[in-house]
Amino acid sequence: MKSVNADTLARLAAIVGEATAITDPAAMVHYMREWRDKWVGTSPLVLRPESTQQVSDILKIAHETNTKIVPQSGNTGLVGGGIPNGEVLLSLDRMTKIIAVDALDNSITVQAGCTLKSVQDAADAMERLFPLSLASEGSCRMGGNLATNAGGVNVLAYGNARDLCLGLEVVLADGRVWNGLRSLRKDNTGYDLKNLFIGSEGTLGIITAAVLKLFPKPSRHDTALVAVPSPHAALDLLALLKAVAGSRLTAFEIIPRIGIEFTTRHMNAQEPFAQAYPWYVLAEVINNPEEELATVINNAFVKGLALDAIVAQSEAQRQAFWALRENMSESQKFEGGSIKHDVSVPVSKVAVFLDQAITAIEKFMPGARPVPFGHLGDGNIHFNVSQPVGMDKAAYLSRWSDMNDLVHGIVLKLGGSISAEHGIGVLKRDEMARIKSPVEMDLMRTMKQALDPKGILNPGKVLA
Amino acid sequence: MKSVNADTLARLAAIVGEATAITDPAAMVHYMREWRDKWVGTSPLVLRPESTQQVSDILKIAHETNTKIVPQSGNTGLVGGGIPNGEVLLSLDRMTKIIAVDALDNSITVQAGCTLKSVQDAADAMERLFPLSLASEGSCRMGGNLATNAGGVNVLAYGNARDLCLGLEVVLADGRVWNGLRSLRKDNTGYDLKNLFIGSEGTLGIITAAVLKLFPKPSRHDTALVAVPSPHAALDLLALLKAVAGSRLTAFEIIPRIGIEFTTRHMNAQEPFAQAYPWYVLAEVINNPEEELATVINNAFVKGLALDAIVAQSEAQRQAFWALRENMSESQKFEGGSIKHDVSVPVSKVAVFLDQAITAIEKFMPGARPVPFGHLGDGNIHFNVSQPVGMDKAAYLSRWSDMNDLVHGIVLKLGGSISAEHGIGVLKRDEMARIKSPVEMDLMRTMKQALDPKGILNPGKVLA
Repeated sequence: MKSVNADTLARLAAIVGEATAITDPAAMVHYMREWRDKWVGTSPLVLRPESTQQVSDILKIAHETNTKIVPQSGNTGLVGGGIPNGEVLLSLDRMTKIIAVDALDNSITVQAGCTLKSVQDAADAMERLFPLSLASEGSCRMGGNLATNAGGVNVLAYGNARDLCLGLEVVLADGRVWNGLRSLRKDNTGYDLKNLFIGSEGTLGIITAAVLKLFPKPSRHDTALVAVPSPHAALDLLALLKAVAGSRLTAFEIIPRIGIEFTTRHMNAQEPFAQAYPWYVLAEVINNPEEELATVINNAFVKGLALDAIVAQSEAQRQAFWALRENMSESQKFEGGSIKHDVSVPVSKVAVFLDQAITAIEKFMPGARPVPFGHLGDGNIHFNVSQPVGMDKAAYLSRWSDMNDLVHGIVLKLGGSISAEHGIGVLKRDEMARIKSPVEMDLMRTMKQALDPKGILNPGKVLA
Repeated sequence: MKSVNADTLARLAAIVGEATAITDPAAMVHYMREWRDKWVGTSPLVLRPESTQQVSDILKIAHETNTKIVPQSGNTGLVGGGIPNGEVLLSLDRMTKIIAVDALDNSITVQAGCTLKSVQDAADAMERLFPLSLASEGSCRMGGNLATNAGGVNVLAYGNARDLCLGLEVVLADGRVWNGLRSLRKDNTGYDLKNLFIGSEGTLGIITAAVLKLFPKPSRHDTALVAVPSPHAALDLLALLKAVAGSRLTAFEIIPRIGIEFTTRHMNAQEPFAQAYPWYVLAEVINNPEEELATVINNAFVKGLALDAIVAQSEAQRQAFWALRENMSESQKFEGGSIKHDVSVPVSKVAVFLDQAITAIEKFMPGARPVPFGHLGDGNIHFNVSQPVGMDKAAYLSRWSDMNDLVHGIVLKLGGSISAEHGIGVLKRDEMARIKSPVEMDLMRTMKQALDPKGILNPGKVLA
């Protein structure tokens, strides 16, 4: 791309001050490297504003001079959405103020650079729960969580980041500030602008602050690891649990046998049961009255839906169950190449999807090892496939896109999504354009054109 | 406005066929009259399409010929949003198919003309709950519920109509159909178009079908009527109940003493307690374990938050409590003129709002009788004010706009909304334009221009 004019760079740097405008490539490595080294970006200038006003001033100059800007939050994304390709980078990492907490209103107002963990902690200090929770919560930041509509392990009960947001402040492509920092549960005055910015990955505006929903802190968690014969049985178990626990069912995750093998082999995990079972469910309910979880599990045994089960008897045991689930991704690294899919289908179709996708992979590449795990309760499966034992890793990974086509084809036939929680960025941009209807692609381009007519915000992400 | 060309009218009528194209003014009265006679519209033609294809064909011709179209659903709105002013009316009342119900997926797919009641019933038949519930549920239709982001009595636990929608089908201003009928709990592929159409009151597109969320049917409801000394005490009681019941607290409504007087005087309601109390709360929890509601109420007595309380001991008693609440609006008709406000503030500010607004009304017009009631748990109060006894009704109602200014001024200072659940339509259009920031108004106009550049969809509603 065209390099940015030196005078413009100097004007932009002057807004934040010398100490927080980085031009030395060595000093900006942290902002340029995607954490798995999948993308390494370049930029003439990293700006670290400390206020909405500074972000606004930056975008006013960018708009005037047609300077493209890539906003970056915690840089923990998985689709290359925050990595620049020669553009000026705007990092939100100094905008870390908790602006207000209102326990009676069950809301918290934060700057976009707050880490997810810091928001959780501020809520906790007020005896409240901010339920968004994901692996990177120590380093991801709320601006990015909202810009990507982050998911995580509590979506089943509390929804995605979108559902947890009451109000937003957004700096528009021309530098104007939209103050939508409302804390209202009901407001039907005009169009819903908030949800257009949420999930737009920094391509329609830069989120600088947000009002978020808080919830009562659960008084107890009950967690069970249940061995099940099949994903179909897992789905039936989900229905049993939902009927009893309703919105108190906060997690329902599936783990395949091979995942337990990987974590016991590589991550010091203990085999949970005396014998091996084909599939496992990790289920958690809050404020569980009267051994309700145990009762449902007994019912599941009677119906043949459960083969074995342990209800955690201590916080340590609960954490051990969660570690099994959370180490799924990490443990696969020790088994060679892994080709990944972050897909969702209607909840009722998850078992059919798994049947069809596993069968298709076996046919596509004998010996390839599907390790599908994740948020079965939301219909969202991380359908990762480890390479055949002994195969050359590079040769395996060269089949990435062919395998994606195969799995995504099944997903789409079942009315699913090829990016359930990770977003589009650059990774899935062209594939999205191929599979969405022309009408939907046109509507998206219309939104982009309307809100960022000069195309200066995060160019090349989401839309080409 | 300019009358529509006869040839165009004939082409439009031909799409739906003679039997469902109404040109006789006497036969179209049902579609022209707002149910309270606040607005009476005019139209050269009422079209009653039976399919998305017909709606699409109508809009293609409308787009080609610059013919303005007013979409209408159940015609139960309160802000004049569905009443035409000489435009062609498109009624969705023949599009009443339940397209699919999937109990395991907890979803239902319906045409936009389904009444809310028919959706509730279809869910119930599958042992599921569709929780949207409002006074007009027998006649309002899902298209309108979504186009206005309807609220109602269960928002506290389940959210507004927006929160209950998984996917939409929308006919765009140029007649193209956007098929976003997905049943996914997680889908981060591109911009959120769905929420832009929801709440846009038919000005950005015509919703023709939707996928809606279902929930487990509650196994029991526990309902209490609690007399409280003040709205401040009611707020503290809300916090106590939320801490224990969390998302199982499905309703928390406030009723003032005068409201009980009106319903006992005019609606055959029984005085609920042996003596009068200043305020009442109607609270409902589902799947209440172990007399939890009674325990919380006892705790509230100890803290001085409750003065008296009855937990309903039968479904009949529960219904009697709800009738007190539901007859609030109707009972005011017998007391002369009523000036209305549908407002919300942050939940923690509801009591302060009521203090300030009641004091302000007393000063504004001595003898005027505030009857504020409604969804305290959502921060949403229907702040109605009945006329002073003996005052001339017309003279009283002539102060409507002055009183609105007064109350809305207090609402806005508290960060609230002047239309919490009823929308904008024509009633609040000009007031909205005065109070919203220029940036927000400009963003809304940008959306309208982008999606309906010829301005043919529900002209004059929401935006001038």
